[in-house]
Amino acid sequence: MASEYVDMRNLKFLVNEVHRAAELTEYPYFADHESETLDMMLDAAKQLADDHMFPYLEECDRFGVLFEDGKVTVHPQVAKVMKAMGENGWIGSTFSYDDGGMQLPHMIAFVAEYIFEAANNNLTGYPGLTGGAARLIVSFGSDELKETYVPNMMAGKWQGTMALTEPQAGSSLSDITTSATPQDDGSYKIQGTKIFISSGDYESTENVIHLMLARIDGAPKGTKGISLFVVPKHRLENGQLVANDVITAGIFHKMGQNGYVTTHLSMGENDNCHGYLVGEAHRGLAYMFQMMNGARIAVGIGASSIASAAYHASLQYANERPQGRRWGDRSLDQPQTLIINHPDIRRMLLVQRAISEGSISLAIQCARYSDLMHVSEGDEKKKYDMLLEILTPVCKTYPSEEGIRSVSNGIQILGGYGYCKDFPMEQYYRDIRIMALYEGTTGIQSLDLLGRKVVMDNGAAFRLLMGEIQETLQAAGAIQSLKNYSQLLGKELKRLADVTQHLAAIAQKGDIELFLADATVYMELFGLVTVAWQWLKQGVISEQALSNVALSDGEKQFYQGKIHVMKFFFVYELPKAAGLAKTLLSAESLTVLKETEAVF
Amino acid sequence: MASEYVDMRNLKFLVNEVHRAAELTEYPYFADHESETLDMMLDAAKQLADDHMFPYLEECDRFGVLFEDGKVTVHPQVAKVMKAMGENGWIGSTFSYDDGGMQLPHMIAFVAEYIFEAANNNLTGYPGLTGGAARLIVSFGSDELKETYVPNMMAGKWQGTMALTEPQAGSSLSDITTSATPQDDGSYKIQGTKIFISSGDYESTENVIHLMLARIDGAPKGTKGISLFVVPKHRLENGQLVANDVITAGIFHKMGQNGYVTTHLSMGENDNCHGYLVGEAHRGLAYMFQMMNGARIAVGIGASSIASAAYHASLQYANERPQGRRWGDRSLDQPQTLIINHPDIRRMLLVQRAISEGSISLAIQCARYSDLMHVSEGDEKKKYDMLLEILTPVCKTYPSEEGIRSVSNGIQILGGYGYCKDFPMEQYYRDIRIMALYEGTTGIQSLDLLGRKVVMDNGAAFRLLMGEIQETLQAAGAIQSLKNYSQLLGKELKRLADVTQHLAAIAQKGDIELFLADATVYMELFGLVTVAWQWLKQGVISEQALSNVALSDGEKQFYQGKIHVMKFFFVYELPKAAGLAKTLLSAESLTVLKETEAVF
Repeated sequence: MASEYVDMRNLKFLVNEVHRAAELTEYPYFADHESETLDMMLDAAKQLADDHMFPYLEECDRFGVLFEDGKVTVHPQVAKVMKAMGENGWIGSTFSYDDGGMQLPHMIAFVAEYIFEAANNNLTGYPGLTGGAARLIVSFGSDELKETYVPNMMAGKWQGTMALTEPQAGSSLSDITTSATPQDDGSYKIQGTKIFISSGDYESTENVIHLMLARIDGAPKGTKGISLFVVPKHRLENGQLVANDVITAGIFHKMGQNGYVTTHLSMGENDNCHGYLVGEAHRGLAYMFQMMNGARIAVGIGASSIASAAYHASLQYANERPQGRRWGDRSLDQPQTLIINHPDIRRMLLVQRAISEGSISLAIQCARYSDLMHVSEGDEKKKYDMLLEILTPVCKTYPSEEGIRSVSNGIQILGGYGYCKDFPMEQYYRDIRIMALYEGTTGIQSLDLLGRKVVMDNGAAFRLLMGEIQETLQAAGAIQSLKNYSQLLGKELKRLADVTQHLAAIAQKGDIELFLADATVYMELFGLVTVAWQWLKQGVISEQALSNVALSDGEKQFYQGKIHVMKFFFVYELPKAAGLAKTLLSAESLTVLKETEAVF
Repeated sequence: MASEYVDMRNLKFLVNEVHRAAELTEYPYFADHESETLDMMLDAAKQLADDHMFPYLEECDRFGVLFEDGKVTVHPQVAKVMKAMGENGWIGSTFSYDDGGMQLPHMIAFVAEYIFEAANNNLTGYPGLTGGAARLIVSFGSDELKETYVPNMMAGKWQGTMALTEPQAGSSLSDITTSATPQDDGSYKIQGTKIFISSGDYESTENVIHLMLARIDGAPKGTKGISLFVVPKHRLENGQLVANDVITAGIFHKMGQNGYVTTHLSMGENDNCHGYLVGEAHRGLAYMFQMMNGARIAVGIGASSIASAAYHASLQYANERPQGRRWGDRSLDQPQTLIINHPDIRRMLLVQRAISEGSISLAIQCARYSDLMHVSEGDEKKKYDMLLEILTPVCKTYPSEEGIRSVSNGIQILGGYGYCKDFPMEQYYRDIRIMALYEGTTGIQSLDLLGRKVVMDNGAAFRLLMGEIQETLQAAGAIQSLKNYSQLLGKELKRLADVTQHLAAIAQKGDIELFLADATVYMELFGLVTVAWQWLKQGVISEQALSNVALSDGEKQFYQGKIHVMKFFFVYELPKAAGLAKTLLSAESLTVLKETEAVF
């Protein structure tokens, strides 16, 4: 087992220095918080993760989930973590005081989530989804629903879920068929099947509250006829919890996240499943997107955090394992050198840092926009909303896809041991792979980015983001040692804009299928430029910090290390942009189905 | 379970049309074979794989390997496959008639291996390593060793292994310490520990024959003091097999290839382990490299084959799963379309074909050089030897690294199901990950490529390879529809030569550590260009075939499909070369350890 999984110094650097959390506390909504208390919150999160999560990572994997006689058993630590997270206010920590929360900035809540996930990604989904589900009720539910469900959820007593997917409706939510039939008492009878429902059922929670999409009888076809319901495992009748005809038909046996239950649910087999409408009828998908957007960023954070934990495990190994000798002096009379002294090992460590620290910086950037949106009004609010919208699919996808490569590099550092169960690397490798599938696959995120976010309001969000990046380019351009990197990113930004224009022209001609055909390649290019921006930002702050001559040696090394990783990103990662752009600009259409061609 | 795992039409296309196996049969050594009989051999391999291997893939994974009371139990099918492979002559099929083989060209043996591995990569290592170990004895052992061991190994009765790695000596073989003390009877007493020994022990084989590296007492330090021994689990004494003090101390629990045993061996704990010298003392590493080179290509084939099996599984899913609608007509009144009709799914299928079919073509190219080397003399022999030498690390690494991405794309096509154990994708994903570690990690292969093969004889092998690629460029340049692709590859070839010259100049200045620092990035560039060459070759042959107007529709579609995948490689993969070259040409040295820097 490795001894560390996150770098708290790095997290505080990102929160306080790069993304300036203190600025938020100047807004009345966040005024009760101070920079110091926010730091203390992060330290508290680390302590909770150290105590309740990290020691159980391997156990969760090996214990897995048991399903017998229709009952689901998860590792005992799940209930303990739910309780601890509830008691410490982490479930719904960002909710307003009125709704029982701490009005914590998302920047802090996200980073705490990152710490939890890095410690044990098999446990964090339980409280995480509970908070997301509670937020949906808080935002759109009636007072009665709020009173009935939210307090127990925030206390970690009741589990929350989001229940969208059906066997025939995964990526294509328009095809949902779970039905909701109105009853005289204002409730609905629910009938249908949901699959891939995370946290969907387990014995050691009192109740499971499904935020479920279903179609009211006679509703319009497609997404416009989808409504959102609270469908509890046990419903309240006369103050008693009674079974609500939600049956767990099975669980999914996954490659990773073995300690995190994924269920197959059947509702209304005995015509006795009641659901309670949230908000207005037929507006369910729009409501659900609030939760999904949060969940997407959470997935990105989860992927970054696993990559972080894997980085720390491989760094520790590289610092302890002797093997071979450096090229300068390969005499066999001397002992073997530590492998961290070999360039190829250093390159693989740098790949990991570049990806995982770049990813979490992007997530904190999103959190900052989210917080600013919350406390601002009018055009300002709209601006932050758009920035958050365009970055959400990127924030989900870059860490999920590149995180796989990051962890794979970590395995490689351990050699054969990396493939064996004596070390945590293989679990991280299995665990992280689901992130590119959760909450909309990479393909779906890419369609969202290019097909919706980039083109919305005539490209307004895209232009806003360009503006944000330009600001960083200017700041970097004013620092002699960063000028070159500022220019490099400037060129890539221009290239991204050119590619976007090229694709938009195809859309304008009406060939939407061709326009979106390479959306995933576009996403890769977009992610690269966006994360390069986050690195340049970190470079600017680090250079500014280094101008303080009173810095301790340790601090100096921290900032120099940051600049080193930034340079690495620009030399080893960013150059990939040229090839991606070339692919996107190619006139050959090789992936769109043509009736005259038989390719497979 | 998927219904197919290889495309026999593709394999015969590569063997007969692209790499012209028939030409080999014109040499006396191969004269007993004909094109038709070689095809029949491949069909026989497919039948054996269908009957004995493919149906057991999942079982092998779930059954795993048991270790109790010092005894190793593997799935019962292991012994059956060893028997079938022995009886059908596949173990040592390429050996000469004198040595009990079939004088089969490597081109056929490799493709058969590919079929076996694609069917069940958990089983193929057992006969594969046995053949490799037998070859070492045949090539360098005394007549007595040959007579004692080889027939039982070729019959599949005795298992063979290669035993190199020790706890302190993995990548750094110079540090091997297993000792060999000369005895009066000419044998040696062996003492030491070996780890990560594949096929190292199991009850259902009569004997295990380790081809083991050890150091004779008083031998020089480093690789020049390493000798090769036969160290059997049971030695023959007076015609009886008696225990030879080779103890299995444990097995490794791996993420994948769970049905393939990896052992931890301890020799001579009771001072009763006898080893028998193979060839001359202190020349063991050179001998072992014969087996390692074969094993490296076998690993590349293994990776290609898993990628192939995963491709077929995801293709089948894409052809059966309806989801969503095409952009042209998204009306909800029509049923959902099959996902194979979506561009992003087609792109992911094409990524898989581009990687897996490009990889196996490269392996067959290596096999061809190996066969031609075998039957030629003098300069001609030297030429093929050098081509094989320079391509071996690439043939091992490209499929191992890119194969991961290939299978990952396959998982993505299945969505959440790809991550679940109901489908074979997750097993393929776990299984293939070991290939980048086996027989020298990617880092070691890359040092071998750049540090040895590219620079040997003043770049002679590199120039020979350039010449081979140029031949293909000329052939393609003469075909109107391929001219553009010929030019594209020509440019990348030039770029690779420039990068190589740039790096060689650093070596000439004596900074070997800097010269080799980015060897892995160089490997990636080299692999890309090499596989593009294999695709252009396939394009040339396909265009020539299409000029035959009498072609059936099915055949026409096959060749058109090939050209389509070739184009895909040139549009989606080859453009990556520019970025890699940029990284390699960068003047910043970010991965070489500098005492003044603290990066981690």
